Amino acid sequence: MWGIVDKDGRIIKRNSFKTFESKHFEDFLLALQNSLQPSIDEIGEENFEGIGIGAPNGNFHTGCIEFAPNLAWANKIIPLAEEVSKKFKLETVVTNDANAAAIGEMKFGAAKGVDDFIMITLGTGVGSGFVSNGQLIYGHDGLAGELGHTIAIRDGRDCGCGRKGCLETYTSATGIVRTALEKLSDTHSILKSEANINSYTIFQAAKAGDELALEIFDFTGKILGQSLADAVAITSPSMIIIFGGLAQAGKYIFDPIQKYFDQNVLKVYKDKVKIVPSLLKANDVAILGAAALI
Amino acid sequence: MWGIVDKDGRIIKRNSFKTFESKHFEDFLLALQNSLQPSIDEIGEENFEGIGIGAPNGNFHTGCIEFAPNLAWANKIIPLAEEVSKKFKLETVVTNDANAAAIGEMKFGAAKGVDDFIMITLGTGVGSGFVSNGQLIYGHDGLAGELGHTIAIRDGRDCGCGRKGCLETYTSATGIVRTALEKLSDTHSILKSEANINSYTIFQAAKAGDELALEIFDFTGKILGQSLADAVAITSPSMIIIFGGLAQAGKYIFDPIQKYFDQNVLKVYKDKVKIVPSLLKANDVAILGAAALI
Repeated sequence: MWGIVDKDGRIIKRNSFKTFESKHFEDFLLALQNSLQPSIDEIGEENFEGIGIGAPNGNFHTGCIEFAPNLAWANKIIPLAEEVSKKFKLETVVTNDANAAAIGEMKFGAAKGVDDFIMITLGTGVGSGFVSNGQLIYGHDGLAGELGHTIAIRDGRDCGCGRKGCLETYTSATGIVRTALEKLSDTHSILKSEANINSYTIFQAAKAGDELALEIFDFTGKILGQSLADAVAITSPSMIIIFGGLAQAGKYIFDPIQKYFDQNVLKVYKDKVKIVPSLLKANDVAILGAAALI
Repeated sequence: MWGIVDKDGRIIKRNSFKTFESKHFEDFLLALQNSLQPSIDEIGEENFEGIGIGAPNGNFHTGCIEFAPNLAWANKIIPLAEEVSKKFKLETVVTNDANAAAIGEMKFGAAKGVDDFIMITLGTGVGSGFVSNGQLIYGHDGLAGELGHTIAIRDGRDCGCGRKGCLETYTSATGIVRTALEKLSDTHSILKSEANINSYTIFQAAKAGDELALEIFDFTGKILGQSLADAVAITSPSMIIIFGGLAQAGKYIFDPIQKYFDQNVLKVYKDKVKIVPSLLKANDVAILGAAALI
């Protein structure tokens, strides 16, 4: 997904292509160029300030993607900024997708004027960006903010990163499907007859009052609420912003997150942390945040 | 424990009194005054810049201790800076004891010139201070950095904070004693005959090659190494500094911490994080850090 953003933060052009279908980095670069070049040519390259990229495991300091477990072409160190910059002859800055979203929320969304918050993205994986003292925490190597790869259940589900029990194996869009498939075998849920179980069909079933779907959301919210209660003990934010596909399930996901967060958080942080959905359209957050890198 | 520090970071006078023996805040204030006032009078109040205090659950923003689970007189909100300032007629600044230690390490110790590190204090409890971009993370309410109260084992040991399984119930000086007592019942350890098991006698037994004592350190290092592996995924530090009584066990505690940290950390952080003991004398770190607040 890409967007062209003007200086006032308006997205004047956008499109998308499937980044995960590429097998090799070269394929990805070609797909990006095919999708984006015509629009750059139309507007005129001289009118661009640069290219900002939010990518999984994107490293702000080096401009590389480093071992992104969900992208076949990026499961090693990929010099993304350097190669994209060469291709388009524009300055290119990379950060991870959740950090880009955090910057988007800080500039244009729910975190305007908020100095300490956590951004959580529930997509194919679980991303996070931590802002403290009004600054994004990049870490010494530019790779901070991987809450999705902290352990939610020790020795739990296999994760793409090679370890077991990572938060994202439970609370990502793919994680909730794994939960559904685990719970399916012994119930009478309407989900049982669904050929394609995904986070949207689970949401639809929950809305229809399906008990298993409600149980699935409760479990997902429990795991995330517990993890967020621990994360809060590190940076003590006043706000947690959640975005991505699963966040669109509204109260079905937010109610259990809040419930289990409240049950698990240390007393000194209780009733101090707002857990809210992103105020920006899902696709806008990432584009605006990436653009704000430039 | 208190110290009087000159502008060059030298501790020119010091003493200690038992802060945890006071039942009420008034008793603590009196004990502090009895211990400290003679030295202030001797040097002359006009020669002091102020008083810096590192206290468990100390809040930098408000100057209060808030619900410190290990201090009988401070298990509510205590206006420490205000009352100490009144008593001694000197500007007073409070932060939590681990944050004070982190500032001490940054100014005078192992973290000189290090912008991203985690400070861990293994004492009666487990404290932590997180430094990112060269700044201490205080959080929106001044209470960030409570790694000791993140959950190490879900539904594990009862913690003074009212929850179960907090890191500090396993890896503090009192936590390692709990581990020893749990493991004692069915073994032939030389610890079995010890009337007073404490972190020092466990250390002595480990040095003597006692298998149970080594097992206790291995378990303690495992719990801490696992927690640190997760903490690193939040702030991506280049260094973790460990200090406090347990850190003095040297390789008996550092070797297992390192082993389980390496086994559990996400690939992108591997071999990037130095886990080291404090370079300062245990008592100096807290005094110098607290002094540096002023």
